[in-house]
Amino acid sequence: MKSYIDQNKERFLEELFELLRLPSVSADASFRGDVLKTAQAVANSLIEAGAENVEVCETPGYPVVYAEKILDPSLTTVLVYGHYDVQPADPVELWDSPPFEPVIKKTDIHPDGAIFARGACDDKGQMFMHVKALEVMVKTNNLPCNVKFMIEGEEEVGSENLAWYVERNVEKLSSDIILISDTGMLANDTPSITTGLRGLSYVEVEVTGPNRDLHSGLYGGAVANPINILTQMISSLHDENNHITIPGFYDDAEVVSEAERAEMAKAPFSLDDYKAALDLGDVWGEKGYTTPERASIRPTLDVNGIWGGYTGEGAKTVIASKAYAKISMRLVPGQDPEKITQLFTDHFMSIAPDAVKVHVTPHHGGHAYVSPTDSKGYLAAAEAMEESFGKKPVPVRSGGSIPIVALFEKTLGTKSILFGFGLDSDAIHSPNEHYGVFNYLKGIETIPLFYKHFSK
Amino acid sequence: MKSYIDQNKERFLEELFELLRLPSVSADASFRGDVLKTAQAVANSLIEAGAENVEVCETPGYPVVYAEKILDPSLTTVLVYGHYDVQPADPVELWDSPPFEPVIKKTDIHPDGAIFARGACDDKGQMFMHVKALEVMVKTNNLPCNVKFMIEGEEEVGSENLAWYVERNVEKLSSDIILISDTGMLANDTPSITTGLRGLSYVEVEVTGPNRDLHSGLYGGAVANPINILTQMISSLHDENNHITIPGFYDDAEVVSEAERAEMAKAPFSLDDYKAALDLGDVWGEKGYTTPERASIRPTLDVNGIWGGYTGEGAKTVIASKAYAKISMRLVPGQDPEKITQLFTDHFMSIAPDAVKVHVTPHHGGHAYVSPTDSKGYLAAAEAMEESFGKKPVPVRSGGSIPIVALFEKTLGTKSILFGFGLDSDAIHSPNEHYGVFNYLKGIETIPLFYKHFSK
Repeated sequence: MKSYIDQNKERFLEELFELLRLPSVSADASFRGDVLKTAQAVANSLIEAGAENVEVCETPGYPVVYAEKILDPSLTTVLVYGHYDVQPADPVELWDSPPFEPVIKKTDIHPDGAIFARGACDDKGQMFMHVKALEVMVKTNNLPCNVKFMIEGEEEVGSENLAWYVERNVEKLSSDIILISDTGMLANDTPSITTGLRGLSYVEVEVTGPNRDLHSGLYGGAVANPINILTQMISSLHDENNHITIPGFYDDAEVVSEAERAEMAKAPFSLDDYKAALDLGDVWGEKGYTTPERASIRPTLDVNGIWGGYTGEGAKTVIASKAYAKISMRLVPGQDPEKITQLFTDHFMSIAPDAVKVHVTPHHGGHAYVSPTDSKGYLAAAEAMEESFGKKPVPVRSGGSIPIVALFEKTLGTKSILFGFGLDSDAIHSPNEHYGVFNYLKGIETIPLFYKHFSK
Repeated sequence: MKSYIDQNKERFLEELFELLRLPSVSADASFRGDVLKTAQAVANSLIEAGAENVEVCETPGYPVVYAEKILDPSLTTVLVYGHYDVQPADPVELWDSPPFEPVIKKTDIHPDGAIFARGACDDKGQMFMHVKALEVMVKTNNLPCNVKFMIEGEEEVGSENLAWYVERNVEKLSSDIILISDTGMLANDTPSITTGLRGLSYVEVEVTGPNRDLHSGLYGGAVANPINILTQMISSLHDENNHITIPGFYDDAEVVSEAERAEMAKAPFSLDDYKAALDLGDVWGEKGYTTPERASIRPTLDVNGIWGGYTGEGAKTVIASKAYAKISMRLVPGQDPEKITQLFTDHFMSIAPDAVKVHVTPHHGGHAYVSPTDSKGYLAAAEAMEESFGKKPVPVRSGGSIPIVALFEKTLGTKSILFGFGLDSDAIHSPNEHYGVFNYLKGIETIPLFYKHFSK
């Protein structure tokens, strides 16, 4: 299989480039046509790779691409999940090359080059490794078991209609394991497997003061300025120790044992390197926890966007009628996203002074997830990585969220393996997102080894 | 003179409309051509009204339009000040008719109709009353004294180059009184004259956390989110009584006497009407002061704009690298705007945690101003209003700022009379700015009466 990959790697890159050229931004309705084109392109690539019964399945939102290759119903079945939609490219002006014109550039971390484009890593690059791995196994007669694909187009906006789809196709999607490459590993010489994910609650808040924009001279000091009030309300959501002040917020949060925290502390981590990489004068976060713990085993509350009033050039002396913020909370096992959204909403409404009106709109959410390191799936993934990297992978809890992983367990009764090959430095969700050429090809090489070990 | 106004009122309106069609937004460089065209249009209108030595005077910024009509150097001289630039029209989508296409519509407050357009009141409409009043006096042989005009194009961005111009033309601008219509009166049946203005300090702040936008899952909780930090920093600028917490902020603020506060309290004001007009559940402001006091005799701190992170459609799980706010402080007599800007900057830098970098940029500022009610200028203005409105005007302290009024007193040694005919409900600086047809024509009628009484 390795020589097949070597002979075809230029084509494997060019095919990924074609997919990256489609701006499949699910959060912005103006890209609708491109999102739909991308679904069709993924379906075509699966047919070319040797899959059968390839379908672009309608949902109330963007379609799910389904495909399968069933050798024998009695054999083990692997279900691959991934997504073909991408984050918005804003702020576009901070990209060094256009976000939807992929190019390979060398970096310190990727001396063999990295593919720069929105979605290069998250998740087109990682998802497409599975399409190419299928081709490798089919063409070299190495597919040892059945395989199904389910590639969605709404992951970056909460996977709302994937739940709709999964609930209606429980039989069709039955499998022994779900394989997902939408996470990262510690470094190219330190393979790792993500064993935990945080959940998510995401809300948008609107604060209304006066019913129209006002002159700040004539009204300043006498009416509630919705921006000032919004800053006070948001500010009050953390106390001086950076604990979240929403009543009941921590009630159901599972506490990680001292033993597991001690185990986590053994993973390689340099606070100086972390600060230098992000140009930080200091780190920040909840008192009593280390930086890796704050980013993985603890729940958080972050403002993802804020806006209101005059934001153009120069000075405008206005008191805005409205101010807005997008706020997300990362959750840990035990915390129910719907309950947390409700707690947030109740608390946020309760702290609003009478001088303003407040409206809270929930966006989307998802449960946290933990996968045990002694399961058959984890062990097969670890063996595959050890074989291709020459090194045993480290189990790691991630701070990110893939809400559908908890959904799969609940609806399909199937565990997932988070088999990601990205790096923290890949700048996913940021300008200049990229994915190492090494990582892309190493993924295509490692995935068939998982099939081999898992179907043993 | 009144019959001349009656015979020409349609033309007076049409000429103002022509001026309002020019989008002279000084804060946005993309309107530069229109701002310059407006200066020329004002100059032409002054020539047509009978002024002499009309000049469009170059400055390092937008030009100042100068004009004069000197009957005899030994006579009294009135200097008219106004501005031909306007506020930005954003948010344009909240206008019911396009901001630069003036139309007359009836409103509850203006049963005879009001002119809807950006600048209709502030200040094209009010400034142009003086041009038409000059025409009336010249054409009917009623000009009793000398008159000079100084109409600038940078009032909405701090009048920086007007100071440059005034300092270089002290002789040319000499006069006995400066007449300015850039304020309001209480109601069409309650004429009033503004006897005080607040000063201004306006700054822009930038908070930088990590050196690039980050994924809020992978980094959330572990790095300082510049939006969260900015909300905490802004929130801390007021205490629980809505006093401003910047050390030294109130040190030089003149305290208004109990007697003057008692006098102010006699002006007609209905808290219920105020709340209803702005659709407020409650008012807000500094403890220990009434709403009219908060809006006039007390210094304030308001956020005029805030932005950072993802503000588009849908949800994006990002931690922004930077967050920004525009913050202005209204000042009272005694407070020096440069000193206040420095106090703000020092304090804001001092409260920034090590985890972020903060940058403060001063925009512009100006001193507060108070004019005595026993001066010759105030008495002439009061007599003129009494004659045209049939009612003695009330003296009122305004919360707005016209920083150049303090500058005129310092540089030219001349007092100003704030002879404004706008209403609070005119929505200046807001969408749907308008100016009553009654007010426009009443201004043209009243201004010559000021000349008559002042030159007695």
